[in-house]
Amino acid sequence: MQSVAIIGAPGYAGVELTRYVLAHPEFELTLATSSAEAGKRIGDVYPALAPFTDLAYEAPDVVSIAGRAQIAFLAVPHTAAMAVAPALLDAGLTVIDASADYRLADPVTYEQWYGTPHTSPTLLAEAVYGLPEMDRSKLPGARLVACPGCYPTASILAAMPALAAGVTTGRHVIVDAKSGVSGAGRTPSAGTHYPTVADSTQPYKVTTHRHTPEIEQQLSIAAGREMRVTFTPHLVPMNRGLLATVYLELDVAMSAEDAVVLYRERYDGEPFVTVHDAGVMPATAHVRGSNRAHIGVTVDAHTGTLVAACAIDNLVKGTSGQAIQCANIVFGYEETTALHQPVPVI
Amino acid sequence: MQSVAIIGAPGYAGVELTRYVLAHPEFELTLATSSAEAGKRIGDVYPALAPFTDLAYEAPDVVSIAGRAQIAFLAVPHTAAMAVAPALLDAGLTVIDASADYRLADPVTYEQWYGTPHTSPTLLAEAVYGLPEMDRSKLPGARLVACPGCYPTASILAAMPALAAGVTTGRHVIVDAKSGVSGAGRTPSAGTHYPTVADSTQPYKVTTHRHTPEIEQQLSIAAGREMRVTFTPHLVPMNRGLLATVYLELDVAMSAEDAVVLYRERYDGEPFVTVHDAGVMPATAHVRGSNRAHIGVTVDAHTGTLVAACAIDNLVKGTSGQAIQCANIVFGYEETTALHQPVPVI
Amino acid sequence: MQSVAIIGAPGYAGVELTRYVLAHPEFELTLATSSAEAGKRIGDVYPALAPFTDLAYEAPDVVSIAGRAQIAFLAVPHTAAMAVAPALLDAGLTVIDASADYRLADPVTYEQWYGTPHTSPTLLAEAVYGLPEMDRSKLPGARLVACPGCYPTASILAAMPALAAGVTTGRHVIVDAKSGVSGAGRTPSAGTHYPTVADSTQPYKVTTHRHTPEIEQQLSIAAGREMRVTFTPHLVPMNRGLLATVYLELDVAMSAEDAVVLYRERYDGEPFVTVHDAGVMPATAHVRGSNRAHIGVTVDAHTGTLVAACAIDNLVKGTSGQAIQCANIVFGYEETTALHQPVPVI
Amino acid sequence: MQSVAIIGAPGYAGVELTRYVLAHPEFELTLATSSAEAGKRIGDVYPALAPFTDLAYEAPDVVSIAGRAQIAFLAVPHTAAMAVAPALLDAGLTVIDASADYRLADPVTYEQWYGTPHTSPTLLAEAVYGLPEMDRSKLPGARLVACPGCYPTASILAAMPALAAGVTTGRHVIVDAKSGVSGAGRTPSAGTHYPTVADSTQPYKVTTHRHTPEIEQQLSIAAGREMRVTFTPHLVPMNRGLLATVYLELDVAMSAEDAVVLYRERYDGEPFVTVHDAGVMPATAHVRGSNRAHIGVTVDAHTGTLVAACAIDNLVKGTSGQAIQCANIVFGYEETTALHQPVPVI
Repeated sequence: MQSVAIIGAPGYAGVELTRYVLAHPEFELTLATSSAEAGKRIGDVYPALAPFTDLAYEAPDVVSIAGRAQIAFLAVPHTAAMAVAPALLDAGLTVIDASADYRLADPVTYEQWYGTPHTSPTLLAEAVYGLPEMDRSKLPGARLVACPGCYPTASILAAMPALAAGVTTGRHVIVDAKSGVSGAGRTPSAGTHYPTVADSTQPYKVTTHRHTPEIEQQLSIAAGREMRVTFTPHLVPMNRGLLATVYLELDVAMSAEDAVVLYRERYDGEPFVTVHDAGVMPATAHVRGSNRAHIGVTVDAHTGTLVAACAIDNLVKGTSGQAIQCANIVFGYEETTALHQPVPVI
Repeated sequence: MQSVAIIGAPGYAGVELTRYVLAHPEFELTLATSSAEAGKRIGDVYPALAPFTDLAYEAPDVVSIAGRAQIAFLAVPHTAAMAVAPALLDAGLTVIDASADYRLADPVTYEQWYGTPHTSPTLLAEAVYGLPEMDRSKLPGARLVACPGCYPTASILAAMPALAAGVTTGRHVIVDAKSGVSGAGRTPSAGTHYPTVADSTQPYKVTTHRHTPEIEQQLSIAAGREMRVTFTPHLVPMNRGLLATVYLELDVAMSAEDAVVLYRERYDGEPFVTVHDAGVMPATAHVRGSNRAHIGVTVDAHTGTLVAACAIDNLVKGTSGQAIQCANIVFGYEETTALHQPVPVI
Repeated sequence: MQSVAIIGAPGYAGVELTRYVLAHPEFELTLATSSAEAGKRIGDVYPALAPFTDLAYEAPDVVSIAGRAQIAFLAVPHTAAMAVAPALLDAGLTVIDASADYRLADPVTYEQWYGTPHTSPTLLAEAVYGLPEMDRSKLPGARLVACPGCYPTASILAAMPALAAGVTTGRHVIVDAKSGVSGAGRTPSAGTHYPTVADSTQPYKVTTHRHTPEIEQQLSIAAGREMRVTFTPHLVPMNRGLLATVYLELDVAMSAEDAVVLYRERYDGEPFVTVHDAGVMPATAHVRGSNRAHIGVTVDAHTGTLVAACAIDNLVKGTSGQAIQCANIVFGYEETTALHQPVPVI
Repeated sequence: MQSVAIIGAPGYAGVELTRYVLAHPEFELTLATSSAEAGKRIGDVYPALAPFTDLAYEAPDVVSIAGRAQIAFLAVPHTAAMAVAPALLDAGLTVIDASADYRLADPVTYEQWYGTPHTSPTLLAEAVYGLPEMDRSKLPGARLVACPGCYPTASILAAMPALAAGVTTGRHVIVDAKSGVSGAGRTPSAGTHYPTVADSTQPYKVTTHRHTPEIEQQLSIAAGREMRVTFTPHLVPMNRGLLATVYLELDVAMSAEDAVVLYRERYDGEPFVTVHDAGVMPATAHVRGSNRAHIGVTVDAHTGTLVAACAIDNLVKGTSGQAIQCANIVFGYEETTALHQPVPVI
């Protein structure tokens, strides 16, 4: 039984982590921090959680956290994570970070995209990128896990099998992604105001989204060569859900069925990945509330293009569920613990 | 361990029952029937359930069901339930019926509202109305449970404490209810076509909805006198969720805080009911995917009116979760088995 | 040709007024004020309006407004309207106020509900309540028009015919209303954040909403006796649209058809009101983007209750369209000018 | 003044045509046909249109149409259009066809994608493709106009300027498109059932959508060489709106600002096209209910890719508004007649 702290607990990533930790048979939630909500009970802020915990949010304090938890899940924005991670690690905690702070191996790239120097660059080499489907071998026993962003998770899962199999040798991937609004977090803004978002679709941060270098870094590892990504995120009127549609130029003639076989071989045995039959495409609704990734793949023969789409729940496989999955592997629990149950299909 | 059949399994009530039965430690799903989907695997129709079962839908056949299940959950439309219930009971099964067929004690009322004679009226006396919060004492060992409709569940939970406490002696209750679209079921129609429903609110079946006599029957029992209900359902653009706002004329002066105390006393110890603090009203989003009922109650002092609102998930506490809750009580399992876990709050 | 100023122009009421004034053959938009957006072009803030005007928002300044406009539409919050209306009237402008500041005849009631003393109470006697369907005779030539709130508009239109006809002599009306999110205005907040609102319904400000005394004031006038209203607004996931469902206890036996006849007689000749056939209820989608009010009325014979529902677009008949309709009457233009065109039905 | 018949009038394209024809100062709606709704008044099927016409739908009959209208707008499915167009043309009518039947120049391509031989292939040479922004010179006086599909309209407007300018010489365009549900028409189906569509995004008909050859045909004309398109449509939970995001490999180095200049030069003087400033991307909400196309264009310098997104209302610029625009040109009316008015921005 591990004692768990969630840092930044009332945000959307944090509250999803809260519900998973509360349901996890090996984890005990001992503290949940928040500057803004300190003093309020979790169940007052989120009535749906009231029956499951009497804990109140408390102001973040590294010393206090260190003495009361063995694992810290960081659900704070970038820069706020690296402000606390080193001290928590020094105090002997395992840190599962859902922010962007330890995802990029190169601190220069970090500074370039996040606009501020990295304050603990020496930890970057130690941090393990937390996408088990890509490489789970480094996770057992890791002290610091950098969980992928929601867009990278779906993009990598959609592109990796083709890149790794060598059916394409180009260096360019197009990722056209569509995200629900919860991806923007819990803080209201003009861009997340209901009348702005409802009944509308809009691209945003085209060519400038911070997940771009992360996708490129991981796809380069998958391909074994430097890859470049054109990444276009779109905001669509959904609460949850993220779909990444990726386009890869093929070097070889292959059918949709061939592509399905290739993807199924790559994900054989993966507990959370489904590769649909040829001709079937994933819907975000089918993974809503679950840690699963559904993938559809086909081939546009007349242009020689592989088209793969991956649907995830941005708050589960895209954030909190993945963090739990990684923590399960780090500590040697069954990988699916707390994550494997049927969820509503409507 | 009980073997379970779900009759009418691919409909919305059926698929929600399916996920609960699959997650239930004491239930084993042994067959799932459907005329329309017979032969297809559950996981093909609902990809989200594929990891949890390999079962295929099969055509309904009472003889076959009888030999393979101890419990039958009926998730078929009215009249279809009474077409199979007697034979299933005769074969020794426990029948938990989510349809309307055994909810009304009086077969004359049934015929009047459902337009067809009841074909097993002798069973009506035996059928137990499956709203545990109203009277769970008759459920243990029951052979035939008639689970309430979604509108009656929310309406009764909102009105019952005030009626039972005698703070109102009138005979008239106004119920203004708002339902998500999944309440209309899985079959597409002009009225559930996305462009018709989205961004719109509309009352329907005003004064003619079939849940009216059921609400009246149960509120009369609660009040100990004949009650009449003006019932106005509205369709609102939500997938799931049902809110019933009820209006009762008060005989006594009372504050909102008094009303909260009265409601909390009535629901003391109830595992699935939350009565909010005075001034707090329930949102259907807070109970989405869960078996909980959230109630807000206040008093309009200048008109002497009690206003209570109850939010439920129409497919859970309004249908399938309630059926599981009843089955748990019937068989002596912990009442919350398979129903008590934190659900997504966004 | 009248020169027009819109005060508070980039808010939702203001931008709807902007599009109507731009389309009005007798009005010329000469200035649009905004503290927050001063200096930006209207077409930059609202790309859809770019082809129709090159005007930029400017900071509000009463002296400047007075010299450049004959009509001022006030689309500012309460208290901000009465801060400028007296000076604009002194300067000879006609003021059409969409705020609450001149709706309540009694300044004591104003202070009680709005928490601040009225600063120009002597104008209250002169202000004309701008609901033409109730009494358009006072509007021609009026200097100051107080346009009704969105909830009062729908509530009054739904209840007035029955109250005025004397088929009910009770003093209590129940109004259960459902509003789209644009009613909360353009400023983002936790309560209008997309993930909070989407797929949810929730009552709010039950017994405390500021439109209550306004509805009571006008229904008392309509009934010829003091009326009290239990008013329960609900937020539903729509951009636009407002539905008020009202409940009145009948003194006389009447059929749904009788009620329809009564309502049709009352609204005979009204250019913007449709009373549906018996059994047909209005949908907010059917009036989206238009100045129309659709009314459905029926009778619950077994409880002696009249149920009437009125659907409007909260930003048109509920705010800006009504303001234009009033202005047309004030200046002797055809009442439907700029308001009578087919709008999208999907 | 032209007399107008709308064939297939109660469908979504038909009803939008109806409202535009009713508002058009030079058109008079003389008949509206429908097999399914024959005998019902337009205003009964669509209450919002009741104040504007007393016409009833009538069964389609070519002889009757021919005698009563000078223009026929065809809002029927493919194959149904070519079943009536030749006779209407023979009777001297101008035919504006919103279906796919006369869009493809090559009847072999038609048969290949639509699965049935073309029954009036000789008319294909005469039919004018109705996208004025591409080539309006052939429209004046045309007898038969083939209005583009909704996806082709947005895709062509987004890609054409770059292809025509020669900044890319590749033969491959990727079009990732997102459509609202009204694009699927008025007939309910499992795929348009509210609970299926709401809160979900899903690709469909990937590599097999029938708009593919149409986009290829027109982009080939624009580029002056044979182009191939990878086309991936997605269904997103919106009523209306269509966004096409296109990806083109650049041969030359150019900045986002350069691309904006290029696009603005191409669309200079176009009454319905807005090219946003560099860094601004279009939202479908901004064109809802209007005939406008909003385009954002940028360059991903590190991959040498031009990314352009075009937002239209699928039922207006994507169907009915475009048909009216073409008809205006055919008959020599001001191109913007009935199409140029401010629409709601929320």
